[in-house]
Formats: sequence, C-alpha cells, structure tokens
Amino acid sequence: MSSDKPTLAVVGATGAVGTVMLEILSSRPDVWGEIRLIASPRSAGKKLVVREREVEVVALSPEAFDGVDVAMFDVPDEVSAQWAPVAASRGAVAVDNSGAFRMDPDVPLVVPECNPEAIARRPKGIIANPNCTTLSMMAALGALHREYGLRELVVASYQAVSGMGVAGPERLYDEIAAVAGNRAIGTVAGDVRKAVPDLVDSPFPAPLAFNVVPAAGSLKEDGWFSEELKVRNESRKILGIPDLKVSATCVRVPVITTHSLAVHATFDEPVTVAAARAVLEAAPTVVVLDDPAKGVFPTPADVVGTDPTYVGRIRQALDFPNTLDMFVCGDNLRKGAALNTAEIAELVAAELSSR
Amino acid sequence: MSSDKPTLAVVGATGAVGTVMLEILSSRPDVWGEIRLIASPRSAGKKLVVREREVEVVALSPEAFDGVDVAMFDVPDEVSAQWAPVAASRGAVAVDNSGAFRMDPDVPLVVPECNPEAIARRPKGIIANPNCTTLSMMAALGALHREYGLRELVVASYQAVSGMGVAGPERLYDEIAAVAGNRAIGTVAGDVRKAVPDLVDSPFPAPLAFNVVPAAGSLKEDGWFSEELKVRNESRKILGIPDLKVSATCVRVPVITTHSLAVHATFDEPVTVAAARAVLEAAPTVVVLDDPAKGVFPTPADVVGTDPTYVGRIRQALDFPNTLDMFVCGDNLRKGAALNTAEIAELVAAELSSR
Repeated sequence: MSSDKPTLAVVGATGAVGTVMLEILSSRPDVWGEIRLIASPRSAGKKLVVREREVEVVALSPEAFDGVDVAMFDVPDEVSAQWAPVAASRGAVAVDNSGAFRMDPDVPLVVPECNPEAIARRPKGIIANPNCTTLSMMAALGALHREYGLRELVVASYQAVSGMGVAGPERLYDEIAAVAGNRAIGTVAGDVRKAVPDLVDSPFPAPLAFNVVPAAGSLKEDGWFSEELKVRNESRKILGIPDLKVSATCVRVPVITTHSLAVHATFDEPVTVAAARAVLEAAPTVVVLDDPAKGVFPTPADVVGTDPTYVGRIRQALDFPNTLDMFVCGDNLRKGAALNTAEIAELVAAELSSR
Repeated sequence: MSSDKPTLAVVGATGAVGTVMLEILSSRPDVWGEIRLIASPRSAGKKLVVREREVEVVALSPEAFDGVDVAMFDVPDEVSAQWAPVAASRGAVAVDNSGAFRMDPDVPLVVPECNPEAIARRPKGIIANPNCTTLSMMAALGALHREYGLRELVVASYQAVSGMGVAGPERLYDEIAAVAGNRAIGTVAGDVRKAVPDLVDSPFPAPLAFNVVPAAGSLKEDGWFSEELKVRNESRKILGIPDLKVSATCVRVPVITTHSLAVHATFDEPVTVAAARAVLEAAPTVVVLDDPAKGVFPTPADVVGTDPTYVGRIRQALDFPNTLDMFVCGDNLRKGAALNTAEIAELVAAELSSR
C-alpha cells in the first residue's frame, strides 16, 4: 500500500445510499487514508463533505481507481456489472451493493455478523453486499441459526420506499402532499389513484399514499418478484444453508426508510422465547424491543437512522414445533445497504493491513 | 311473523360499521319489512337514511326489540354481551358483530360462503359474525379448503385503521395532515412521533403516518395480540378444522379501509396455481386480480368500498409442498363486517320465511 492506511473509493457517492455512506464513513472509526468520491460524469466536480472535509467528486473512469485499495459500489446493477471488474483489474477490492454479482459462486455475499470469513475467497476481487430486505433480518436470524439451526422461513415484508433510491421518497412525499387534508379519501375504490400525481411519473406501479402494494423489484418466473427470490437465494448463501426452505411476500408500504419483516422461522432444535431473547440480546448488533404490554416493539418511525437490527413480538408459534414468530425492523439504507458495505470494506482493510 | 317480510333491527346504527350497514341495506335485494335503527340513548332521535327513507333512531331498551325478527349488533363487546341475549329473549335472532360470543360453542360463527348451514343450530338465539381480519380472507380460503383441504396457515396482515372504528381514520387523517409538506420526515428515529398530535389521544400505541405498527387488538397470553389469536381460533371454527395450524402476525398500516393479508397456505392435497385460480374464479364472491406483469394485483386503494374478496400474487411455494403464497384484500367494513352480517341476517330471513 502507498500509505499507512488504505485508500477507499466510493462509487455512486451522490445517490441515496451514497449519501448515507458518507455520513457513516464520517462517524465510524477512521480506518481509511484517502477517501475518493466517484460518480457519473454529470456529478463530477460537485463537492461533498466526508469526515468534515470537502471532497471533489471525480468522474467514473478506469484511471479513477488507480491507487485504490477498496472500492465500494452503490450504483445500478448494470453500472456495477461493467465497472466493478474494472476496479478489480486495477488492483482494488470491489465491494458491490448491486444485484449484479450476489449469486455468482466466485463472489462471496457477506454479512459480517454471519459469514465474515467468506471475504477471504474472492477470486474475482469482488465481494457482494446483500439486498436490503434480506439484510434487514440477517443479523438476527444468523444469531438464532448458530444456536438452533434454521430450517424454514416464511416472511412477509413491509418495505420502505427509499429501497427504490431517492425517487421513492420524493414520490411518497408528493403523494402525501396531494391527499393531505382530504378527510374522505381512501374510502372509495380508485379515489387515491385519482388524487395523487400521474403514476407514469412514479417508480411504483400503484399509489402508496393510504395504500400497500404487493410488488417489489421486477417480475420474475412463476409470479415471483425479484425481491422475494432474493430473500430466498441470498439467505441461503449468507447463512450457508443451501436447502433452506423460504417463502417471501414482499410488499411496499408508505414508509420512507426502514424495512420491517414478519418472520415465521422454524429451527432444527427446540427453542423457547426466553432462550431466543437471550441469544438475540447477546448479539452485539441486535436490539431486542419486546415488551408489548408497555408499548415496546420495533416500528420504522422509531428505529430509522440507527444501525442495529431490532427484534420484537417474539412468540413461540402455537401450532408449529421449533418455530418462532417475530417482527424485525432495520434501516434499509444503513444496515440494509451502506453500513453493511462499510463493514465489509473495513474487514478488507483489516485484512490488507495485516498482510 | 307480523308482516310478509321480517322486521330487522340495526343496533349501533350510528357507528363506523353501522353507517356502512345502512348503505349496504339500501343497495341489497330488499328482504326486510320494517328496519328499525337502535343506538345509545344519546343518539336517539337522530334521523338516518336507509332505503332512501329517513328513519328516526330509537334508544336501546328491552322494548326496542319488540316485534323484531332479526337484530344485528355492531357495538362494543360489552354492549353485545349485555344486549344480544335481551334481543334473543324477546324473540329476535341476534346477529352479533362483536367478539363477545364468537368462540361460544352454542353460538355459530358464520361466513355464508363457508358454513351457511351453521345458522340452523343456535340454542342461544345468537349468531356471531367473525373478526374483520379473519373474514377478509375466509371466502377465498373456504373455496380452496373445499377442494384441497387446508392444513396450515401462516398469515401476516396489513390492517386498515377503520378496524378500530371511526377514531382510527380520524387519527390517521390528523397525522397525515401534521406530516404533509415536510420532505425530510421519516428519516430520523422519533421525528414522526414528535410531528404528530399527542399519542395520548390516539387509539394506536405508536404513530401510523410513515409507519407500521405490529400491534392490533389487546395483548393476550405469551406475547400474542387478540387479533392474532382470533385469526387462529375463528378460522378453525368457521372452516370446521379444529386442528388447523395457524400463525398470524397482525400489523396496522396507514390505510383507511381494506385489510390485506400475505397468506402462506398449506393443503392436504397437491395444488397448482392454475387449479387454485380456477377454483377462486368459480367462487361467486371472490375476484382474482393476478396479472402482475400488467400491474394487476389487489391493493386496498383499488378495492375499498366494494364487496368481493380479492386474491392476487398467487404462487406455488418453491420449497413447501402443497403450498400456495398469495395476497388477499377485503374491505374490512363491508365483507369484513357489515356485509357479512347482512348476509347472515338474510340467511335467517330466508329460513324464517320458509317456515
């Protein structure tokens, strides 16, 4: 390395996740030498603040990766598919938050609480960061899996609009402004659809104000949406359970940031609520909020902007052996995206420093 | 009977469900002679419109049931517990939409699509209408159960605020008005909580604007909320499957009216998506909205104010045999409450007329 501390590049620094990434990099223990900000040519020259210093954004190019040790990518799939290998060919370890490489057998898919050792085998020089929906529950499920052996997952999601990038919150704020003050709306079929701005301009296929929409990601085979298949495939890969049984229904809800999940999890071993709570409380990045008699349970509005994975409403399933029902919340831009990417990058930095 | 057509009493005519009931009674085939409107003494004298005629509300009293053949109750549990037996003792058949009698072995719990024959055995003169969450999916599940034998249900709900009565929508409209126009809200823990009116005045334990709340009903044993236990116990009773395995997580969402449910249903027999769709399309009160490639799936905003049970996102579970995942929507005030009550009352009216 050219300095004592490794050089980090943030590709997609001006996006929704990139913005949160700069906040996170400014608040975590500082393991980085230079932090280089990279974005599309139209954002080049823009100045952003990271670690309390202004840094000028440079345009994405092969040369932008020269001297970079770790390059984080928070960009669309097709941009990652093209540019993460370029970064790797220039000697950087690419940590990619897109869906481009997650299921590639030669790319580890990493949640530091679950499989930190997986970063070591990266023949393509690329490490993938999971999808935000999967990530929002992984720290909690990983802790329980280590103790009880996860066998089956039935999940229903309550997904925030910022999972779509900045266009998601912009659209929901517009819709809320359009319906606010109308104290009869939401009572006749189609009245919300008429009241909100034209859906042609929306990143969502239906209104979200006073609504929930059972469609997240793109439609894949046999009626499944991509987000639902990601929950299945990525959970299996991260936890190292190739035959994990998973059914997920992913639903977009009118929440700005923080994904919630109703989780029905079946284990190999018997598990009590008290034992599960103890396991989760011992997990460093998990917070148990579970005293419903006192109104204590996780909700997006109360956990947004923070780092942990929150678990509440932990119940023993009444009719299913070795099974817990619970409600899990995690900030989809932080642990669900930028934070986990930063944590993976820090693992790589530690590995590079120890060489 | 004293006239050609039976006399109906609507108890709780001024409430959230009662208001919808009067609309429904005004639009259905008219099987009733007199329709008498009954409410608490403070609403007595008020004039409401039903079947295009003004009817004066009379105060709840034993005498109010004189000459009544069928008395519908849309009132709180404790009012039903006291007054449904009074109506029955005066010769009326009480059709009760509260939770007071649903699990009483001497009170049938009826969904006309599932167990219409159950109305015949009513030793207490009382018939119960199910909870709105259970009801919102029963017509669809009943149709599938008849063909394939339902064995297990894992359900996550997306419940509308009008399930709480008129206070629910009033509160959500207030909260939306308080947050509208703020294009940074929902991004920091607690910011929504600070922006909305004091929660002391809310029927909900947490904000609902830009939020979801995993608490519905009252807290019961072992961390389960009453709505979750009702889904289990009432589904078993309605479908006549005493050992049906059920886990439900009930979550309140910022929707005015129409409950949605992510349903993971396992059957005794193998079932394909095509076969299930055919069964559901043949069910007279079920509408299949399932062409996600064209943006066709049920959402609350598109089905509110209508009668059917809507089913979409029908998928064969990838890892669970004989299992379907689907998304179900139903108007919680109509099929989920008033409509089903009216349908039960009509079954009773037909039985009385045939004597």
